[in-house]
Formats: sequence, C-alpha cells, structure tokens
Amino acid sequence: MTPSQRPAPHAAATETLADLGEWELIRRLGVYSTPGRFSDDAALLQPPAGQALVVNTDVLVEGVHFSDATTAPADVGWRAAAANLSDLAAMGCTGCLGITVGLTAPGSTAWSWVDGVYGGMATALQAYGGELLGGDCSSGLQRQLAVTALGAVDPARPIRRSDGQPGDLLVASGPHGLSRLGLALLLGELNSTERSRIPAALQARAVEAHQRPRPRFDVVRALHRSQPEGSGWRVGGTDSSDGLMAAATAIAIASGCRAALTRSQLPRDAAMAGIHLAETWCLAGGEDFELVLALEPAWAVAICQELPDCQIVGALEAPDQAKAGPVVWQDSGQAIAPELSGYSHFQSLHS
Amino acid sequence: MTPSQRPAPHAAATETLADLGEWELIRRLGVYSTPGRFSDDAALLQPPAGQALVVNTDVLVEGVHFSDATTAPADVGWRAAAANLSDLAAMGCTGCLGITVGLTAPGSTAWSWVDGVYGGMATALQAYGGELLGGDCSSGLQRQLAVTALGAVDPARPIRRSDGQPGDLLVASGPHGLSRLGLALLLGELNSTERSRIPAALQARAVEAHQRPRPRFDVVRALHRSQPEGSGWRVGGTDSSDGLMAAATAIAIASGCRAALTRSQLPRDAAMAGIHLAETWCLAGGEDFELVLALEPAWAVAICQELPDCQIVGALEAPDQAKAGPVVWQDSGQAIAPELSGYSHFQSLHS
Repeated sequence: MTPSQRPAPHAAATETLADLGEWELIRRLGVYSTPGRFSDDAALLQPPAGQALVVNTDVLVEGVHFSDATTAPADVGWRAAAANLSDLAAMGCTGCLGITVGLTAPGSTAWSWVDGVYGGMATALQAYGGELLGGDCSSGLQRQLAVTALGAVDPARPIRRSDGQPGDLLVASGPHGLSRLGLALLLGELNSTERSRIPAALQARAVEAHQRPRPRFDVVRALHRSQPEGSGWRVGGTDSSDGLMAAATAIAIASGCRAALTRSQLPRDAAMAGIHLAETWCLAGGEDFELVLALEPAWAVAICQELPDCQIVGALEAPDQAKAGPVVWQDSGQAIAPELSGYSHFQSLHS
Repeated sequence: MTPSQRPAPHAAATETLADLGEWELIRRLGVYSTPGRFSDDAALLQPPAGQALVVNTDVLVEGVHFSDATTAPADVGWRAAAANLSDLAAMGCTGCLGITVGLTAPGSTAWSWVDGVYGGMATALQAYGGELLGGDCSSGLQRQLAVTALGAVDPARPIRRSDGQPGDLLVASGPHGLSRLGLALLLGELNSTERSRIPAALQARAVEAHQRPRPRFDVVRALHRSQPEGSGWRVGGTDSSDGLMAAATAIAIASGCRAALTRSQLPRDAAMAGIHLAETWCLAGGEDFELVLALEPAWAVAICQELPDCQIVGALEAPDQAKAGPVVWQDSGQAIAPELSGYSHFQSLHS
C-alpha cells in the first residue's frame, strides 16, 4: 500500500453522501426517527379522534432560502421545521403530529452537513412536538429540503385568513423586523458605525430570531384561554413568514376588508428605534414567524393581557373603493407602499 | 417601436415562471385544486373516522427520475402522483385523501411545462382519488417535485414489509420488466433488429407501463374480498417501485425470512420471452409499481383467482445461515445476484 492509497485518517469526518449510498444514508437518518418508522413504504400514524388534519409543505432551497454563509446546518434544520410548524400554528393547531422530509443534495455533500440539518430538525421537534415520520432522498444539483408538516386542529376552532370582519382589531404576537436585522448582521450588510450603535443584547436577539424562529403554538393556546365568554370562535389570521405587511394584506384580501395599521403602534423591538431601516424591516423584513390575528376588540384586548408580547397594531375596516391598496396607515388613510407586501422567489432570480 | 421590441405573437405560449411571479403561479395552480384550498397557510381536511393515516413523500428530480427526452410534462405529473399513491397502496390504503406538491424550477421554466405537470397529476388523482391539497413553489437550478401523499387505512388491515412468515407464498400483482422495456424503447437503447422483433402491441404496453404506471389500490380491495374465512389479517408486502428483487429482498429482511423465487414463474409479460434482458428487467428493471405480497397459501391462491393478473412467484422460507443472501432461486437454492436488489440515487451520480 502506497501512502496515497491509505485511507485518510479522518475519513469519517469528510464522508460524502456518495460514499454512503442511499440505503446507508436512510439507515443513518433513521436515528432521528422512532425505531421502525423508516422500514416501511410509508408512515402510519393515528390522528387524534375528532380532530381535523392540517397539512403544509414548504420547500427550502440553498441559495434562495438559506446559505452556508448565514446558517449552520443545525440552524437550517431548525428553521426548516420551525417555518413549517409556524404554518400549522397559523391554522389554529396547538402542536405538530410529525413531519416528512424530502432531501435533495449533490453526492459530494458532506454527511456531517446532513447530520447537522436532521439534528436541528429533531431539536425543533423535541421543543415543539411531532416526530420525523419519513421522507425521501435524492441526488440533485442543489441542496434542498421539502418539508411536509402534519398537525391536528379542533375543527370548531380553526384560524383562517378569511375570518376577519370590519371592526376587528389586528394583533401581532411579537416584534417584527428582528429576523431581518439578524440577517443583515450575519450578511455583514451594516457598516462598522451602524453596527457599533446596535446594543450587543439586541444583536444577539436579532441573530437568534433569524436562526431559531419559534412557531407560536403558545399564541394559539392563549387564544383558547382568552376567548371572551359568550363569543363564538371566529379568528382571522396568518403567520408573518413573509412579513407583517404581507400578513395584513393576506387577511385584508381574504376577508374582503381593508387593513389599517397604526404607525405609532408598529410591533418593533424597542431597541431598534435608532436603526434607519427599522420601519421597513418591521413591515417587510420577513421571516418573523409571528401570528397576525384579526379579533373582535374584547378578545384582542384579552389576549394582549394574557400574553405580554402580543400587541394591537391596527384594525380591519370596511373596504373603501376610493382608497388605494388593501393596507393603509390608520391616521392618514394613505396606502402603504405595495412593494412591501411580498417577495417573489421566481422574480428574484429573473435577470 | 422596432420589430425586435414588439411582443412575440405567441407570448402566452412561451411565458416563463419568472414572467408570472410567485403569486400568479400559485393562482394558476389553484385551478387544479378545490376553490379556496390555496388561500390559507395550510390545508385543512377531515380524515375518515377510525382510520389510521398513511403519509408518504417522494422526491423526483429532473435528470435523475425523469427527463424531457422520455417524459412529456403530463406524464411527469402522472408518474409523480402515481408513484406516491403506489406507496399508499403498499401500506394497505384503498385510495388517497390528497397530495401536496413542492415544486422547484428555474425562473426560465415555461409555464406550459408546469401546467402540463399539474394537469397530469390532476388526471391521476381523478382516476385514483384524492385532491391537490396545496404545496409550495420555489426557484432553483433544477426542476424537481416533492410530492407528499396522504391516505387512510383501516388500522386493523395494514400491509407491512415485516408481516411475512416462513411458509407464506409470494404473490406479484402484475408483470415486471415492462416499464424498463418501455424506458429502453423511449431512450433508443435497442438497435433496429432488436426493436423489429418486439411486437407493436408489446411496445405500446411497455411505453404505457413506463409513462402511466397504476397504483394498485384494486389489489388491496381484492385482498379484502379474498381473505379466507377464519384467517386473521396478516399481509406482508411492499410495492415493486425498485423492482421485484428489491421488493422480495425488503420483505425477506423485514420479516426475518429468506425469499425463494421460482424461476419458471417469474411474472413476465409473456410477449417478452424473446428479449434477452427480459429476466434481468423482470427482477431489477424497476418502476413496476406492482404489489409484492407475502400471504398464507390459501389467501395467495384466492387472490390469484380473484385478480387474474396476480401470480404466485415464490415463497418465504425460514432463514438459512448457510445460504448467501436474502433472495434465492427456489429450485437451486442459489443466491440471486445481490447487485439486482436495488439502485442508489447517490452512487449513480458519483464519478
């Protein structure tokens, strides 16, 4: 054996998926699931009796939704699971039954990266409920995760975008724009002067918000506790994965209303006041994964008392044909720039 | 306006996803679903009372699982749905509740391609049950579909790979190798002499088997009808998406048995007798999407009477430590080449 033929001393640390092959990869990923789960054609599970099922699929593509520059493998996994679970919370689920994961990656991908990603997903599931039910693996040019989450909801207590009404107050479950600040810090978008003005505690909070978003099942449970006596269940809402403005727009359009946001009551982290993009990021930074809810006023007040990070940020009004756009400032009645209402994954890559 | 600035006369026919943007793409895809399904964060559905839920995710990547050379967009969609539904049948489902689809594609992808793919999925769902529940779309370097199918199964009547026992007969629900012949014809792998020897009817059957595989829910229903009186429900099985040999291997290993295949009883299309690779393709061509079942002898005989395309192809035996491999020829006891037992998507791309 010549020196070049000897196995590398740390071969295990640099193993690639092509080294493992599909079956060994699936065997190793089985560690992140219940024993036996991966040994059949599909996963079998018993949904809770009397509950409706909620199903959500998210696709996360390297270079579009995550990059090695800003996201460690464990954070990619956490965010993939948490973003998906956030959609379950946005439908009124109080937890998750489980997820399936479709992994695509080039054969040259390090096993340690995949191991980190699945470890991050497992950590999120341990924190918020649900198990890894199964999935599929394939080679491909680009790393990608397609995550499908399953949840259960009391069919009498769903949250729907279309269930808002004029007169409802809009409640946001936490600060917006923090995740975008975290991304700016990770990408080095701020110069040293700007950065030096941001307190270290806020920087840490922002990076945490970006890397470890929390699905707000606790907000759904607080909705249950704070429902005013004598009120029927009617909750309009969505999550703010595409930003506060996109969430308000989605509720307004689906409910046939106009959303009016109160500029002085935007749900910003107080420490962000000195950052010049704070308002834009609060409206359209995205990836906040908070819930934005349309509630009758008594309920809106009650949930803000129940959960201190909830805040009334505006109201739904009857649509006014004379006004532009589905989202306006409450004081001036002026439309909020529609370019803040969303993000197109396709147009963003169109040159 | 110069000629080059004029819109192309058939602009609509060449629209790309980047032209549409994400929201318009999702709006158009909504046509393939129930009205309102795509207007919330996730899909809500009511599973049948008392049934267990079956969940399966498959990833299909361009250049790995399909290519424009062999597969029209409608066939890509049909196969994506049918392959996934086949896994539901392999768990004992008699139908499908619905699917979600995670689509990845470059912005330059023609809308007509996406339209064709979703049309093909919708056609398969119309034929076999289930609806398009929702999904996600993203840009990416490579076209890809991640399909998650949901089914319901009587929890007392599942099919499991591990439920075989020594003495069971192995039943295949239809011919194997036909799909691989179809692929060979589509790829032009056969020379003109070989091709001229294959009857036109067989060629048509083979291409149909490759492009429009059928999930065998009818076999599960036939299992229900043919269960011998006084027998408890015990059905070992899987589908033959990776080929007959891989299916027999999976059942043998999961059931702690050895599978013995009868060479003279291999489930081949009779017309393929003259093709020199017919036996290899029957064992390992793959993508047959038939069910391979381990049943007590009376039940095996009964289902073959119930469904004429079912055929007894071998038996499960007690494992014999002296023999090589989990799958042997019944007459000689010799191991069947283990290289026929599977396919690695990762190693296949490793150079």
